[in-house]
Parts: sequence; C-alpha cells; structure tokens
Amino acid sequence: MKDVESGLVELSFDEQGLIPVITQDHETKDVLMLAYATREAVDLTQKSGYAHYYSRSRKKIWKKGEESGNLQKVYEIRVDCDADTLIYIVSQQCAACHTGHWTCFYRTISGKIIADRLFEPDKVYNKSNE
Amino acid sequence: MKDVESGLVELSFDEQGLIPVITQDHETKDVLMLAYATREAVDLTQKSGYAHYYSRSRKKIWKKGEESGNLQKVYEIRVDCDADTLIYIVSQQCAACHTGHWTCFYRTISGKIIADRLFEPDKVYNKSNE
Repeated sequence: MKDVESGLVELSFDEQGLIPVITQDHETKDVLMLAYATREAVDLTQKSGYAHYYSRSRKKIWKKGEESGNLQKVYEIRVDCDADTLIYIVSQQCAACHTGHWTCFYRTISGKIIADRLFEPDKVYNKSNE
Repeated sequence: MKDVESGLVELSFDEQGLIPVITQDHETKDVLMLAYATREAVDLTQKSGYAHYYSRSRKKIWKKGEESGNLQKVYEIRVDCDADTLIYIVSQQCAACHTGHWTCFYRTISGKIIADRLFEPDKVYNKSNE
C-alpha cells in the first residue's frame, strides 16, 4: 500500500457521496466485482490494506469478507481520468462472489458459465447474500 | 460475437435505464474504462460488434471511437451475479482514454503515472473530450 497513502488525486464522488470501484485480481487480472465506496470506505481501505466498500442496500460500510472470510488484500488503488471511478488491485482469498464463484462476472450475456464455483454459499453465509 | 447474441440473461437497468460497463482489453486484461449503457447501446454493441455506450453528459448513445477512430471491437459481453453490471471484452485500437493514455486508469490514487500516453489529444479531437 506504499503508493496509495498520500492521496494526491482529488476524488469525485457522486451526489450520494459514492464512487464506483472495480476490483481486479493482481495476478490473473480478472475483474472480480463492481461495488461502491464512500470517502470513509476508501480511507479505511488505505489504512487497513483490506478492501472496504459501501453497501447501498444495507446503507453501511462493509469490509469485504467480514462474514465469509474471503478478504481482499489491496495492493494498489488506481483512479481514472475523471477521478470518478477507482480500481482496487487485490489478492482475493478463495472467491469474490457471494454465489461462490471466483468472480461475480462468471457468465456471458448469453448465460454461458465461464468461471469456477469455489465454495458453496449455504456453507459460508448465514444469510443468502453478503 | 457468437455467444452474445441470444441474450438469455435478463439485465437489470437502474432507474435511469442505465447499466455500468467495465471495458477490458482481451489480450492484456487491462481495465480500460468504466462507462454506461442503455438497452439500445447494448443491442447496438451486439449487432455491430463494436462498443456503444450512453453518454450521461451529452445524453446520447455514442460509438466509442466515432470521433477519434479508436474503436473497440467487442469479443464478448459478460454479466455479473446481479445482472446489473457488464464487462465488454474488447480489442482496443490505439488508446481508450481521451487524454491519449492506453487506459483511463493511468494513475494511482497518489498520482503516480502507470500507463503510456499513445496519442496527443489536440491532434485527434476537435473538442477537448470525447
């Protein structure tokens, strides 16, 4: 996390105070998920070195893997030209998706499955969805 | 585009009729940009084989590269678990970013430049921003 601490790029949050975050595996370069963060979630990510997001449905900050144990260690945070989207470059434990798949993008638009299921959600979550 | 034509996954558009689209290079697996699409933009992408998006600022559909010539040939469209985010897997001509960089994510959050600039925007665009 050496080069993400100074925070020189001024981020642009939307009217709800959110910024979309793309999560990408640092080894495979697979895109794992898209989520949202608040300023506080980004700060917590930088301070802890683990991915934090803001859940729009539960209206609270969540540390990825806090229930499943499938944490995301963050190596770098990247920002786009308009400073209104981030990428967390991570090392993903086990799998990113609450369905048990390695990536949330486990299907093509035609429904073809293109990623492995690495765990059974019923055995990992008390609730059906993280 | 063989496996994106049947459209079996029912997409979930937001209240503005938009869905976020992550664009990823098919060879390098670099994430190039995040943009938004309407149903019509997705359909045009599937029909033409080239990336189409919806510009929220200009309030119209745009074919990526229509001005710069830097088209994105789309090989596959992927959809996430909630069917509310897409990935366009593309072959990017020249560079994706209107700044001339290969990817819009050419900086870390601390401002370090991590991607090449491949063209001079002033020589490519009549306007300052595609």
